Amino acid sequence: MSDTSHPGMLPTAWYNILADLPFDLPADIQPSGGSTGSIKLQLPLALVRQSTSKQRDIPIPEDILQHYRSWRVTPLKRARALEARLETKARIYYKYEGNNASGSHKLSTGIAQAYYYAAAGAKRLTTGTGAGQWGTALAIGCKAFGLECKVYMVGSSFRQKPYRKTMMQLYGANVVASPSPDTPAGARLLKDGRIDSSNIAFAVTEAMEDALQNEGTLLSVGSGEAYSILHCTVIGIEAKAQLAALGEKADVVVASLGAGSNFGGMAFPFLQDRLRHDDPVRCVSIEPAACPKLTRGVYRYDYTDASGITALQKMYTLGSRFKPPGMHAGGLRYHACSKIISALYHHRLIEARAFGQREVFASAVAFAELEGIVPAPESAHAVHGAIQEALRANEEGTEPVIVFCLSGHGLFDLSAYDEYLGGRMEDTILPDEDIINSLEGLPAV
Amino acid sequence: MSDTSHPGMLPTAWYNILADLPFDLPADIQPSGGSTGSIKLQLPLALVRQSTSKQRDIPIPEDILQHYRSWRVTPLKRARALEARLETKARIYYKYEGNNASGSHKLSTGIAQAYYYAAAGAKRLTTGTGAGQWGTALAIGCKAFGLECKVYMVGSSFRQKPYRKTMMQLYGANVVASPSPDTPAGARLLKDGRIDSSNIAFAVTEAMEDALQNEGTLLSVGSGEAYSILHCTVIGIEAKAQLAALGEKADVVVASLGAGSNFGGMAFPFLQDRLRHDDPVRCVSIEPAACPKLTRGVYRYDYTDASGITALQKMYTLGSRFKPPGMHAGGLRYHACSKIISALYHHRLIEARAFGQREVFASAVAFAELEGIVPAPESAHAVHGAIQEALRANEEGTEPVIVFCLSGHGLFDLSAYDEYLGGRMEDTILPDEDIINSLEGLPAV
Repeated sequence: MSDTSHPGMLPTAWYNILADLPFDLPADIQPSGGSTGSIKLQLPLALVRQSTSKQRDIPIPEDILQHYRSWRVTPLKRARALEARLETKARIYYKYEGNNASGSHKLSTGIAQAYYYAAAGAKRLTTGTGAGQWGTALAIGCKAFGLECKVYMVGSSFRQKPYRKTMMQLYGANVVASPSPDTPAGARLLKDGRIDSSNIAFAVTEAMEDALQNEGTLLSVGSGEAYSILHCTVIGIEAKAQLAALGEKADVVVASLGAGSNFGGMAFPFLQDRLRHDDPVRCVSIEPAACPKLTRGVYRYDYTDASGITALQKMYTLGSRFKPPGMHAGGLRYHACSKIISALYHHRLIEARAFGQREVFASAVAFAELEGIVPAPESAHAVHGAIQEALRANEEGTEPVIVFCLSGHGLFDLSAYDEYLGGRMEDTILPDEDIINSLEGLPAV
Repeated sequence: MSDTSHPGMLPTAWYNILADLPFDLPADIQPSGGSTGSIKLQLPLALVRQSTSKQRDIPIPEDILQHYRSWRVTPLKRARALEARLETKARIYYKYEGNNASGSHKLSTGIAQAYYYAAAGAKRLTTGTGAGQWGTALAIGCKAFGLECKVYMVGSSFRQKPYRKTMMQLYGANVVASPSPDTPAGARLLKDGRIDSSNIAFAVTEAMEDALQNEGTLLSVGSGEAYSILHCTVIGIEAKAQLAALGEKADVVVASLGAGSNFGGMAFPFLQDRLRHDDPVRCVSIEPAACPKLTRGVYRYDYTDASGITALQKMYTLGSRFKPPGMHAGGLRYHACSKIISALYHHRLIEARAFGQREVFASAVAFAELEGIVPAPESAHAVHGAIQEALRANEEGTEPVIVFCLSGHGLFDLSAYDEYLGGRMEDTILPDEDIINSLEGLPAV
């Protein structure tokens, strides 16, 4: 038990990395049209401030802390059995974020966003969700702060993952398959018989239309925004303190990268020591080979979704029209990543690696066997990345402290494990031409 | 956080209630045939001793402790939000056993049984499983101690709960739908086209045949036996110590009752204080109205399974031919319960209540909302039982400490929640004639 640091102090402030960036972030370019501007304006002022503030420690409101306490501080655990299997002298720790009602790290921003929207006077939130983790987190947040919640869930997921849908309904959300008859855009697709033509970007479009048409309703989005990363920094702050309580200091921090809330939430508090005190800690993001924005994308202005009407941000991107090949880590399919993380990578302050899903699942199966937790496909990327770091240490004869974020459990993703165990999982080859074609669609700015 | 007692000391001995019973248990009656005798003989000596020993504290072998440490001590938590909703002055605590690879309390005996079978020289274990919790726990135990594992899973569950099957496969178990072509009995049913004719008793029969036919193979069974309850007493021992660390003492202990490992594992360490020190603690078992062995059964000699060839034990029973109506708490469908628990009930040392599944699910949904954990349908019975105790305290103007065992999570049972939320859940009316008919089949002894 001495390896496990369960409780500890719940942080009372989030860490805002904007205070410590050694460069200026490229400014966003506002779209010329007006329709999304009105949506932008409806972001609660507190969230707008959190996206631009240079204050290092942003106090967490007591009403949010009270909810955080129901599952935080989350456990940090040493993966002794995994270390033994790898015959490594590296010490591997993982921060486990799956032990909450939503099953993933997303709840730390789901609760916070619901709080700020409720405080700003919203009565009802809409959102789009793909695999369902974000929709579940927001549903729970809405329940906590007395908001109605309407979730537009990508239709194929809605039909393939009925359990995720039921989880959202358990927390009182109204969940519909997108395209849905509830919005003009959805109704048009349905009328054309295109029932399976939705993706996450279209689901968000429906959520936007709904928010614009209904009094007291605002749109909430899950990841990539500075505030959603900020809310997740409780994860890294806790992990750092827990390591310190065990007499350890991280040499390598590993987390999977979708749009950024998981990677940033875990890594930024560690990265702070590098930015401010020249600590040599390495922060390594892991992305899927099927959606390799940092390792194969370009650093350019692009839209943050596929609608082509949002503000342009300078990001590493595969192009907002990029359609990743089929894969199981739905949370990592985003075409770009947060402008903050992109800039950090551009300035060589963080690292990135990409892996194929078969090798990722092999590591996940070993981890489940040895440590007793089935990783979500997204989190499995971090497991695999940490294992690679340990194997590299073996080769180099070093003994680093490796800590990774196990961002969620995979109990709703066992069909993917079944596919892997049955030898039916396809690996994802992404031809250069696919990326080139998608990048050709980038806006000219 | 002061309400939550996470870690604490891992118990180093199980509590054996046989040392403290104020009565003699009625002796078993051995069957006249010989085939099962040979199976009985293959129970490892250590487990035979644990079924008859009068030693109060039975040391837990270090090899088992080492595995227990990977998920135990489990959290004990105060249900503050639930208390507020009930407007009660009762203090409600729950011991949560769902945070492990198997998802339920069963792992505490799955690990222990695998250890003892391996120590006795077995190379391979077989078992039958219904909903799959026990099969998963044994698969994990076998993986931990280097045993092969073959699970005969009731065919209807195999097809309806593919995720549970995949969980077992993740831990290396060979899982087949019962009836299976792998045993003579199974092959006969399949040849007759009776693919859906299996139940848990038949699955165990197949596991028995397999064990008899294959060198180095032994049969393991999950619940009801004295040793399986013994192994689960770590749950109640921990809970008692955790309450004491919070300055509390239980007035009422609530747990759901299938064959007995959950109820006995939670309640016996508390009951010890009543048996030895006249402590007034009340231990309340909760059973489904659709399978009400204690509240509507009889205290008679009966078979422990439906095969009619095992030793006869004196138990509260609905008759070994009893077929409960359809319900979601598969783990509570057993027709009888452990002879120890039966005798304690006969002597009025424990209490029993039965509830219908609709009211049970209503409580489970409220619990999920308020406390953030979706209870397994079995565990939901304990949630509902604890709520009834709190409401009773409100009526009587008392302020008891109520502690219940939340024995597992319900993330693989969301189709049942979906049914409940959609208003499609049937309540289970059990006519007297059904019980009378079944009891008429009791063996005449």
